Amino acid sequence: MEIRGHSLVGFRDIAGSSETFPAWNPATGKPIEGDFHSATQAEVDLAARLAHEAFAIYSRVKPSDRGAFLRRIAAQIEVQAEPIIERAHLETALPKARLQSETGRTCNQLRLFATVVEEGSWVGARIDRADPQRKPIPKPDVRSMLHPLGPVVVFGASNFPLAFSVAGGDTASALAAGNPVIVKAHPAHPGTSELVGRVIRACVREQGLPEGTFSLLFDAGTAVGQALVEHPLVKAGGFTGSTTAGRALMDVAAKRPEPIPFYAEMGSTNPVFLLPGALAARGKDIAAQLHGSFTLGSGQFCTKPGLIFAPEAAASEAFRSEFRERVAQSQPLTLLTAGIRKSYSAAMQQRSNRKDVRPVAHGNRANSVGAFAAEVAVFETDVPTLLAQRDLELEIFGPSSLLITFSSKKQILQAAQNLSGHLTATIHGTEEDLRDFAELAEILKHKVGRIVFNGYPTGVEVCHAMVHGGPYPASTDGRSTSVGTQAIFRFARPVCYQDFPNAALPEQLSNENPQRIWRLVDGEWNREEL
Amino acid sequence: MEIRGHSLVGFRDIAGSSETFPAWNPATGKPIEGDFHSATQAEVDLAARLAHEAFAIYSRVKPSDRGAFLRRIAAQIEVQAEPIIERAHLETALPKARLQSETGRTCNQLRLFATVVEEGSWVGARIDRADPQRKPIPKPDVRSMLHPLGPVVVFGASNFPLAFSVAGGDTASALAAGNPVIVKAHPAHPGTSELVGRVIRACVREQGLPEGTFSLLFDAGTAVGQALVEHPLVKAGGFTGSTTAGRALMDVAAKRPEPIPFYAEMGSTNPVFLLPGALAARGKDIAAQLHGSFTLGSGQFCTKPGLIFAPEAAASEAFRSEFRERVAQSQPLTLLTAGIRKSYSAAMQQRSNRKDVRPVAHGNRANSVGAFAAEVAVFETDVPTLLAQRDLELEIFGPSSLLITFSSKKQILQAAQNLSGHLTATIHGTEEDLRDFAELAEILKHKVGRIVFNGYPTGVEVCHAMVHGGPYPASTDGRSTSVGTQAIFRFARPVCYQDFPNAALPEQLSNENPQRIWRLVDGEWNREEL
Repeated sequence: MEIRGHSLVGFRDIAGSSETFPAWNPATGKPIEGDFHSATQAEVDLAARLAHEAFAIYSRVKPSDRGAFLRRIAAQIEVQAEPIIERAHLETALPKARLQSETGRTCNQLRLFATVVEEGSWVGARIDRADPQRKPIPKPDVRSMLHPLGPVVVFGASNFPLAFSVAGGDTASALAAGNPVIVKAHPAHPGTSELVGRVIRACVREQGLPEGTFSLLFDAGTAVGQALVEHPLVKAGGFTGSTTAGRALMDVAAKRPEPIPFYAEMGSTNPVFLLPGALAARGKDIAAQLHGSFTLGSGQFCTKPGLIFAPEAAASEAFRSEFRERVAQSQPLTLLTAGIRKSYSAAMQQRSNRKDVRPVAHGNRANSVGAFAAEVAVFETDVPTLLAQRDLELEIFGPSSLLITFSSKKQILQAAQNLSGHLTATIHGTEEDLRDFAELAEILKHKVGRIVFNGYPTGVEVCHAMVHGGPYPASTDGRSTSVGTQAIFRFARPVCYQDFPNAALPEQLSNENPQRIWRLVDGEWNREEL
Repeated sequence: MEIRGHSLVGFRDIAGSSETFPAWNPATGKPIEGDFHSATQAEVDLAARLAHEAFAIYSRVKPSDRGAFLRRIAAQIEVQAEPIIERAHLETALPKARLQSETGRTCNQLRLFATVVEEGSWVGARIDRADPQRKPIPKPDVRSMLHPLGPVVVFGASNFPLAFSVAGGDTASALAAGNPVIVKAHPAHPGTSELVGRVIRACVREQGLPEGTFSLLFDAGTAVGQALVEHPLVKAGGFTGSTTAGRALMDVAAKRPEPIPFYAEMGSTNPVFLLPGALAARGKDIAAQLHGSFTLGSGQFCTKPGLIFAPEAAASEAFRSEFRERVAQSQPLTLLTAGIRKSYSAAMQQRSNRKDVRPVAHGNRANSVGAFAAEVAVFETDVPTLLAQRDLELEIFGPSSLLITFSSKKQILQAAQNLSGHLTATIHGTEEDLRDFAELAEILKHKVGRIVFNGYPTGVEVCHAMVHGGPYPASTDGRSTSVGTQAIFRFARPVCYQDFPNAALPEQLSNENPQRIWRLVDGEWNREEL
């Protein structure tokens, strides 16, 4: 496979603008040979028009064929895994083992959504049968199910070059629901994006699907992304990235003449609560594992634990000394982009300068001048300071975390009560701790999408029950998840058919129920035919 | 029961502002004795604070107790039905029989949501069990279910003083999901609102629920509604009304520092397609029933058929002559408010003046000077004009409709393709028509929330499968419905529990499954315990 640096608009390679940008190697801090052309408004229009045209056909593709399409993408990514991982490693400096497992996750996601579509019950079919004898007026026959929304724009994420980029979770769920997808490639890994994009495009062609089912556009800046979200033929968006960029695009989506749903997962600081019993029993282990969690992927996970609540020193000494030592022994880590490194350095400088925050420890200095390297660092404060200085709750992307000392149960509950929205919260405790701090979980369930008990928030299981979302600012729409099979619901809406002849109904609502899907018939779930 | 004209803030009656407004009698055009005080920012704050405090308790009320609360509201409305209907008749001039049936619908809605909550499966529980042996990393235990969002503000609708006002569908679904509700009463029927509000408040007290579970605020203008949507402790909103007001409030919700979901059902023009076979077989009947449908409730239903597509004269003569005659024989109808009458008159004047629209017929002139009376009127144009003059697609609230002649199948499909979002679309046809115009339903399903076959869009069945919503501008969120049991999903979001001890899980996710709800366990739906 070739990397040409051209946007893939349907089946066409289009250079677009004469403005180009390179990919960068974070390990050396140098550009990689080969340029990528930013797309222009013309490519945005063409991609949207092709997607709109494709929608009329793709939205009606049989579930089995939609499943086959997703499975083929997974299989072809596996065939091309070596060059894809090679390129992703070059562009992100993420370890190959990590990229290997991320490839596995990407393909598993595609196959999981294929399973969901093939099984078919996700459409939530509901049937209320007619009663012509009802008084005072006859009861009509009413049936409804989910239908896809239309063209979806997906923004590749910097920190998951595979699992949350071109063929990632947003693309898989949008395609599974029956929507054409236009991906805006993340400029941090354009070559990886193009390779994966070419795989998907080949699958579109081989499965005989309409040209506009998939497009991939490049841009060094924000114009193409904004134009896509503004385009009248685009009907929804999915995004993973910073709060600033996510909110800006959400506002664009909300201000359209026809507003559209825009699902931005904007990361969070993922508070961790270390309760006394757990610290007494496993303080040293927790320190080691928490260190592993907040430095994983160079601290660039949306679920990085960035706020660690621990009791005063006496009750947490084993934890504290082990944690301090692990941090002090940490090697420098390579960040994804020059921009992320710059922001991280500025944030560390700002933390070092403030009087209400003390350094706990820092790892070895990052001396490699050219590379996007950063040093691991942990700071410390207390609950009253956190409550007074709300900026301490904000995410810092990179391998840093903040220890927050609490002096009483009252303080910890107060801290929890005052949290803004996060993707996750974690509690380490014994069963006795859980009883003593029963209110804590009750408070946290209104603050986050996922509560983890005696575990670590990084590592998001792709399954049916997963919720990777949460109240604003963790995401722009806390009613949704971007990981797990419930992600498909973001890109669909219910449509109701009243008194339709059986032959004119979608097969999922027909009397025959050929797929044998679960349906709510007159208020009872079953898989029968009528 | 007394009407005091005071806002009901939790258990307190508060006059609020010294600015007052009266209720009006649309039949006489005169104010009704007794003034209503607009609330102030202080009442908004108090209601929001009480609701926030109530949320911590009300969100955890057992499903059976929440069901009992909804059932008690229904029962007490029935006890007080006579004075409520009397007052509603005075304030709206809607016939008592209609208000009687609307009372029935209101109570049925409350009981239907009670059933949903008591049965319990609506929370969509999902369980993926742990696999400690999985390689390379153990699989965690992941469980999720829907939780309520927090305080919900509900805007009473002018056209449904009972079923979409204080104890209407939005209130019932928000309370059912576990959210406290603050209602902003519609100023067109403040006395009815107060009576119903007092019933709900008494039920809150009698069921031992926290004070802030319910509040009702008055305002003659828009300040209180806007302040409620802006309030940081309010977490969602429900609205039924005009596009202008709905969009303005949606924009307020989207611009908040923490944006919240705002569900506005903004009405639509509900296109009806009359196909040749149906007109040949039932032209006269369709004319009579369509006349009944667009004049029902004085043409003030969100689902009023306001665009009627019919073939050229020769193929539709029986329909046209009967329709013309029915319109010409129509008596004047009373509108709900002076404002609605003014807008209706202006719209009729504007239609009369334009050259691209012809009058078909109008009913008897409205001569009662003081009353909010209006004359039934139908105009006519053709598809090319509709496509060129997009304002013709906009809703006119009141007893008017627009006939649109099509000359070919191509024209009708083009018209459908260019529709904006509507709540409903209706097709009248034989089975042969459906085959001949197969693309029509395919196009319409992307345009509306509900497609009706050989029926009429007015009369929205309250059931499990109903979808009363649709793409913008029919609603601000086409993924939702404001009628039927799926309305409960608007006010909830999924929360995920990872590796929680069984005893600390919500009972819906516990191994025991005491309510025997449907759960997706490892990808299979069942009602078993684990």
